[in-house]
Amino acid sequence: MTAPTPGPDGPPPEGPLADLLAVLREAAALKTAADVLAWDEQTYLPPRGGEFRADQLAALAGLTHDRLTGPELRDALLAAEAEVRPADSAAAACVQEARRDFDRRTTLPRRLVEELSRVTTLAQQNWAEARKRSDFAAFRPHLEAVVTLKREEAAAVAAGREDLAAAAPYDALLDDYEPGAKSDQVSAVFAELRAGLVPLVAAISEAGVTPDRSLLTRNYPVAAQYEFCRSGAERLGFRFDSGRLDTAAHPFCTTLGPADCRLTTRYHPNDFSQSYFGVLHEAGHGIYEQNLPAEWFGAPLGEACGLGVHESQSRLWENFVGRSRSYWEHAAPEARAFFPEALGKASAEELYRAVNDVRPTLIRVEADEVTYNLHVLLRFELEQPLISGDLPAGDVCDAWDEKFEAMFGFRPPSAADGCLQDIHWAAGLIGYFPTYALGNVYAAMLWDAALAELGDLEGQLAAGNFTPLRDWLTEKVYRHGRRYAPTDLIARAAGSPPTPAPLLAHLNAKYGALYGLG
Amino acid sequence: MTAPTPGPDGPPPEGPLADLLAVLREAAALKTAADVLAWDEQTYLPPRGGEFRADQLAALAGLTHDRLTGPELRDALLAAEAEVRPADSAAAACVQEARRDFDRRTTLPRRLVEELSRVTTLAQQNWAEARKRSDFAAFRPHLEAVVTLKREEAAAVAAGREDLAAAAPYDALLDDYEPGAKSDQVSAVFAELRAGLVPLVAAISEAGVTPDRSLLTRNYPVAAQYEFCRSGAERLGFRFDSGRLDTAAHPFCTTLGPADCRLTTRYHPNDFSQSYFGVLHEAGHGIYEQNLPAEWFGAPLGEACGLGVHESQSRLWENFVGRSRSYWEHAAPEARAFFPEALGKASAEELYRAVNDVRPTLIRVEADEVTYNLHVLLRFELEQPLISGDLPAGDVCDAWDEKFEAMFGFRPPSAADGCLQDIHWAAGLIGYFPTYALGNVYAAMLWDAALAELGDLEGQLAAGNFTPLRDWLTEKVYRHGRRYAPTDLIARAAGSPPTPAPLLAHLNAKYGALYGLG
Repeated sequence: MTAPTPGPDGPPPEGPLADLLAVLREAAALKTAADVLAWDEQTYLPPRGGEFRADQLAALAGLTHDRLTGPELRDALLAAEAEVRPADSAAAACVQEARRDFDRRTTLPRRLVEELSRVTTLAQQNWAEARKRSDFAAFRPHLEAVVTLKREEAAAVAAGREDLAAAAPYDALLDDYEPGAKSDQVSAVFAELRAGLVPLVAAISEAGVTPDRSLLTRNYPVAAQYEFCRSGAERLGFRFDSGRLDTAAHPFCTTLGPADCRLTTRYHPNDFSQSYFGVLHEAGHGIYEQNLPAEWFGAPLGEACGLGVHESQSRLWENFVGRSRSYWEHAAPEARAFFPEALGKASAEELYRAVNDVRPTLIRVEADEVTYNLHVLLRFELEQPLISGDLPAGDVCDAWDEKFEAMFGFRPPSAADGCLQDIHWAAGLIGYFPTYALGNVYAAMLWDAALAELGDLEGQLAAGNFTPLRDWLTEKVYRHGRRYAPTDLIARAAGSPPTPAPLLAHLNAKYGALYGLG
Repeated sequence: MTAPTPGPDGPPPEGPLADLLAVLREAAALKTAADVLAWDEQTYLPPRGGEFRADQLAALAGLTHDRLTGPELRDALLAAEAEVRPADSAAAACVQEARRDFDRRTTLPRRLVEELSRVTTLAQQNWAEARKRSDFAAFRPHLEAVVTLKREEAAAVAAGREDLAAAAPYDALLDDYEPGAKSDQVSAVFAELRAGLVPLVAAISEAGVTPDRSLLTRNYPVAAQYEFCRSGAERLGFRFDSGRLDTAAHPFCTTLGPADCRLTTRYHPNDFSQSYFGVLHEAGHGIYEQNLPAEWFGAPLGEACGLGVHESQSRLWENFVGRSRSYWEHAAPEARAFFPEALGKASAEELYRAVNDVRPTLIRVEADEVTYNLHVLLRFELEQPLISGDLPAGDVCDAWDEKFEAMFGFRPPSAADGCLQDIHWAAGLIGYFPTYALGNVYAAMLWDAALAELGDLEGQLAAGNFTPLRDWLTEKVYRHGRRYAPTDLIARAAGSPPTPAPLLAHLNAKYGALYGLG
């Protein structure tokens, strides 16, 4: 182990900083109250309860916004800024990040915030219909309206920030999800990633090896799947004394309090792997959340560093741990015990191969570990010209299909399989997609660093001992909250700026062996 | 059917009344958001999530209180009062009741409200400990503090209300749960009830008949109990498209929105009747809630008339329907299908007898249909002198035991089995208990009126057809919300002021037959 890096674990704050934390924590109580209602909406709300739930959430959103942009927080911030020293302390980072959040929230004109809310609500309703009918023309005016407002938002944010004044307008949006990231740096990382992925995908598809997926087409009773999923999450270190696992239409992880983090998944009766890897993925997010410093809950030091680092944890636990050969040496006996009828005497190796099938898919959320990043890169390459104005929103569908063909060698048969597949743009989430691939890049970097420092990591996984890895990640990532910008946090933990080399090396080695490549 | 009574079902409100409803509905959105969190706390909250949940609920309670006592509501009320005519319309009743609520909330000094909150929170924590150790002396100072504050509250409420100025101080508390009720009238009803119940209980215990309860000591798988409970509630008319059934430590019913009403129960693996009648009881509350006029949600016409009438519905569906011989003709085949191993060929008559066992119990919530009311009367007789000052809080334990012996013929062996058994007083709920027995009185009155108007009600129950009864109750009770005071509503539906005669007649007839009395 290296010497511990400084973190927010000194004596409890006092004076103006303590006052600021109290204001933020009370705002977080309101914000997470809304999150409880949103969680309930996805899990247990009776079918006819949806309409009033929207009223309840709107009322809470308004109150939370007032709290987070109001004079009480403004004054607490000013008092803390006048007091907190030295500049490189955890406390200073906390105040600086709280200021960043406050300015970002207050910089947007109320008219723009309300207009964005109205337009994205309509766009999402329309998107759902348009996707059903694969009708891009119907969605087009909504996308145009969203893009227009997001460009306004980007301009408003950039106007208030020195570091964004000279950057591309897109960067002001990206910055909301990946603090401090600049699109030219991200583009450089992604170009290298793409250059390595396209030939790997081609080599795999030309290898003529078809993994035996028949294991994933049998009868897996849902009650046993739940127990297997829960056991998997618990073994990795997700704590059920302060967490839950429920069923929802889409897997997600949500934090409802400093000791209340909830996962969801969905069950396919003929394939345990969809629920299982959904849970390992969300448990990765949850392990991050559960190991943030609870005493800073509601303040920046109690929050995850950014979406890229958050995704690095879901992908690390899902893919680097959960889809590894070592993991299945440990998990195969348990799987056979939960599903004796379906699995019989299936070996760890058979399970490992079945859950690592690579094949091009039209749909991002169904993609494997190798092709997934290409789906993200495609979106990133379309978002930038959308916001700069070089790509009219009406041309997105054609541009999508061209890029897809260049990457995968075939065109999507319909808009529903192409540019209408994701809800993100309808919801106004432009600048969000790149964090998915950054997460994979960071995950591989952290994995290599952990391998170098922890010795026999593979042996630990095979023995079902995830504590050393979790402790290492807590020390390097979780306990710092937002003290460091994502690239700084990764550099401190992995020793270099973001680079796709470890991810490409991992994919080439793993899938080279699985598919018998050169 | 009689001609429909006027109800809140005219054209949608306009002008100042519509504005008032909008303010009330938005306050209800906040209030029910807190209720969602409270429901979650009882059902799904992870063990370590409790501490922050208290912070979330406190934040929401403060905001809801501000909304319900603030200038926006005050102005909306004044505008509606200036506008609404005629005096006997539904709209006028709505405005009058909204004023009543507003005045009651604003009449209490903020210091008293905060002090009550603090003292009752402590008292409840202490009560839980004291009950465990059966230590009344430890609880006594907390009870004294609660009583002192509740007397202050009674004085403050009475000072602002003409109709309470000359009444007993206790009436100001009673009025919060049973609007318009006066303790001398309630006392007269209860004296008659007691005079009829004591000899009936004595006759039953001297009859020497012991019903065969062995049916309720077998193996009832919890999953099948859930399905049986759910089916029972659904058959009575509780709608699951706008409702749910979950598991909690105590059965309850909570309304989280105009189309979201949730029930809970608890399961005993050897006795289906506890979960089942818990659900029928809560479903009775839920059917009332689900048939209130949704367009008035948040306003008095969208709320139940009072706790007595609310309890009349839980008890009517639980006891008059669910514990009737006719009901089991219909339910027995279903019960046998759900529990083939435990029930075998058990007949409707055997089931009917097993679920109608009468025996004195120390604990109110375990009491049968006959003795239950005596437990309530005892509490009512103690609460009045507690609030008048004639009974010092320190003497409650002895006074309880004496009254209990006079009613049941034996003394509670411990304070935990006596005055420490209920949480109500620790929570400041003084004046609440009588509504339980009023509910039974009202239920019997409504049942007799329904029998007279609906013809073959018993035949309908035996056929599993609950629609005529539910429609009748909707017409007579549910759709009116708080348009009428409880005694007026009952008089309109059942043709007389509150009287225990129908309840006594029902109990004498039913249990006279079951126990072979004179």
